Amino acid sequence: MPTTDLPAPTDAPATTETLSPTLELALELLRRPSVTPDDMGCQALMIERLERLGFNIESLPFGEVENFWAVHGHHGPVLAFAGHTDVVPTGPEHQWQTPPFAPIIDDDGMLRGRGAADMKGSLAAMVTAVERFVSAHPDHPGRIAFLITADEEGPAVDGTRAVVEHLRERNERLDYCIVGEPSSTERLGDVIKNGRRGSLGGVLKVRGIQGHVAYPHLARNPIHQIAPALDALANEHWDAGNDCFPATSFQISNLRAGTGATNVIPGEVEATFNFRFSTETTDAELRERTEAILRGFDLDFEIDWTLNGQPFLTREGALVDAAVAGVRDVTGTTPVLSTSGGTSDGRFIATLGAQVVELGPLNATIHKVDERVRAADLDDLSRVYEAILTRLFADARS
Amino acid sequence: MPTTDLPAPTDAPATTETLSPTLELALELLRRPSVTPDDMGCQALMIERLERLGFNIESLPFGEVENFWAVHGHHGPVLAFAGHTDVVPTGPEHQWQTPPFAPIIDDDGMLRGRGAADMKGSLAAMVTAVERFVSAHPDHPGRIAFLITADEEGPAVDGTRAVVEHLRERNERLDYCIVGEPSSTERLGDVIKNGRRGSLGGVLKVRGIQGHVAYPHLARNPIHQIAPALDALANEHWDAGNDCFPATSFQISNLRAGTGATNVIPGEVEATFNFRFSTETTDAELRERTEAILRGFDLDFEIDWTLNGQPFLTREGALVDAAVAGVRDVTGTTPVLSTSGGTSDGRFIATLGAQVVELGPLNATIHKVDERVRAADLDDLSRVYEAILTRLFADARS
Repeated sequence: MPTTDLPAPTDAPATTETLSPTLELALELLRRPSVTPDDMGCQALMIERLERLGFNIESLPFGEVENFWAVHGHHGPVLAFAGHTDVVPTGPEHQWQTPPFAPIIDDDGMLRGRGAADMKGSLAAMVTAVERFVSAHPDHPGRIAFLITADEEGPAVDGTRAVVEHLRERNERLDYCIVGEPSSTERLGDVIKNGRRGSLGGVLKVRGIQGHVAYPHLARNPIHQIAPALDALANEHWDAGNDCFPATSFQISNLRAGTGATNVIPGEVEATFNFRFSTETTDAELRERTEAILRGFDLDFEIDWTLNGQPFLTREGALVDAAVAGVRDVTGTTPVLSTSGGTSDGRFIATLGAQVVELGPLNATIHKVDERVRAADLDDLSRVYEAILTRLFADARS
Repeated sequence: MPTTDLPAPTDAPATTETLSPTLELALELLRRPSVTPDDMGCQALMIERLERLGFNIESLPFGEVENFWAVHGHHGPVLAFAGHTDVVPTGPEHQWQTPPFAPIIDDDGMLRGRGAADMKGSLAAMVTAVERFVSAHPDHPGRIAFLITADEEGPAVDGTRAVVEHLRERNERLDYCIVGEPSSTERLGDVIKNGRRGSLGGVLKVRGIQGHVAYPHLARNPIHQIAPALDALANEHWDAGNDCFPATSFQISNLRAGTGATNVIPGEVEATFNFRFSTETTDAELRERTEAILRGFDLDFEIDWTLNGQPFLTREGALVDAAVAGVRDVTGTTPVLSTSGGTSDGRFIATLGAQVVELGPLNATIHKVDERVRAADLDDLSRVYEAILTRLFADARS
């Protein structure tokens, strides 16, 4: 590995003449331009390291997506590290201060490159954490697994969802899962996600009768009809949330009506909307309430519903305890548990009955130009993951 | 002219071995595929006929649009026949029972072809009416004029509007105008339009703050904001109309918001709307009231207004009297005066202070496939136009 042009910040492992194994692996992963759904050899790199540790590797490609499932140990509870090797596109490369697929650690000790925070840094930290743990505890109780996909940022159909279905079909056990998504906001580990809201989408079509604007009595304007109905939906109080979830929210994302001609009353209007919902309601209840509200407006309507994900929550238990304690051990900070934000692959894994947390680096620069993460944070993150392993599998035995 | 394959209905002039001059000229005009803004020689055909009668012809091209102004007579009030040689596109030609630019008179006595009703049939009827009238009254009082454009169905900027501005600049007088638009609904002459509502268009943009649907507290959804405002505008009672005009109507024709992505709250929504307004209000008042309503909703908005036409009304006078009597003379029917429907070039001509009526054949098939008109109606229409000329210019002298 060329390290000659790498700076040596004073407060990070990069101060030593050679980089830490975590940063070395992160740089190797970041050099591979694995934009969804391309893996570009990232998984081969991880597999090589895990095979060396004695992991049993199972390649699970679905469609054009590469995935793998790897297990170490033969009995007892399963702790899986879950993550993705794919990254979002770079956007205009000339807007980046450094090329997105030529990662460096800069003078401020920041590891720069597309995927540094989301989530190749976490993948490297997982691998090195497991390497140290297995070296120290070759006969650890329980099983350590990896569930890695190359399609989390894309359709997410042939990735974790497909692997989870595969595991379910053969009755594979999954007790704990740590998803490496960048959960931190200000300091490493300040936030652990212990759940996510559900996501329910709908496309509402309201049909009217097309006509000429000069003859409105011969037409029925669906825009005029839908306006008060959308207002009612936007103002509905769906629930108040609870101590784990914010209130359910409803947002209209797209609205389309008209031919472009200014003298034609359109025959149809289409509104696309999305619920992010708490555990105080269900997708079935939201569908019913939405349709009941619309029926109150005497509309000729239909809705095409899509359930993107059920809400999930890992309220308490061994994994949350170990994760909170692990962060505190390494950073001195007590993390906050949160269920805010978007969806993640955790929604699929939770359906196996596993306790799931998301724990990774700061998310300030994800999906943006100049994505970056403090290099020292990745070394700390690796130590946090190791501490969680120790609390769940090593201390338990002693 | 090939007349061999033309059928001979029993109740129309086409029963004779040769067609009437009106139908012969209509067929010649209909063979020219003069889709806006192309004239395809239609005006040359009319000019040739009018020159033969002693009309003074003035070609008035503006932009890429051919127009002409023709006058016969030297003093006294001016009666202008106004019309357009352009036609709307055919749409899918295979849906037509007969090719749109190969006009025929079918077994039912219907003249078929694009423009048969809107409005080459009227043009032919005007020319032959004037031919007969001038032959009978070579020294008629008053002046007879033609104001013909090839851009009524299109932008309508370089057509009648430009010609009218030109006439205004040189203080040209215009007392009466008969626009050949197809005004009839069930029987020839059952409706004469003696005015039209005004048309005021607007494009309303409401700005919000773009964001992720999972973080609505960081965004401001302009769709949610515009919905109650559109509802208020759609339910506003703008006026009650009067005995000459129906109530002012407001219609939203187009609505656009969103990137297509289902997880993004859009930053802006755009609504296109149109007023058709009576003489009980003004465009200035409608703008003010619209903006006042929107200001009640605390919106970040702007409106781009377009005044398409002021309302105009020819309530009574020599032209309306002559038109009503002319129809009754020929058809036995007393026409109804109406201001309903869309705009026409009458809106421009009325600004010269002229009395304006629209009088033409049945409008049931205009802008549709298989546009057609009863052949016998065009001969009657020619006689109606002649009767109006006689009442205004010949009887007046006697």
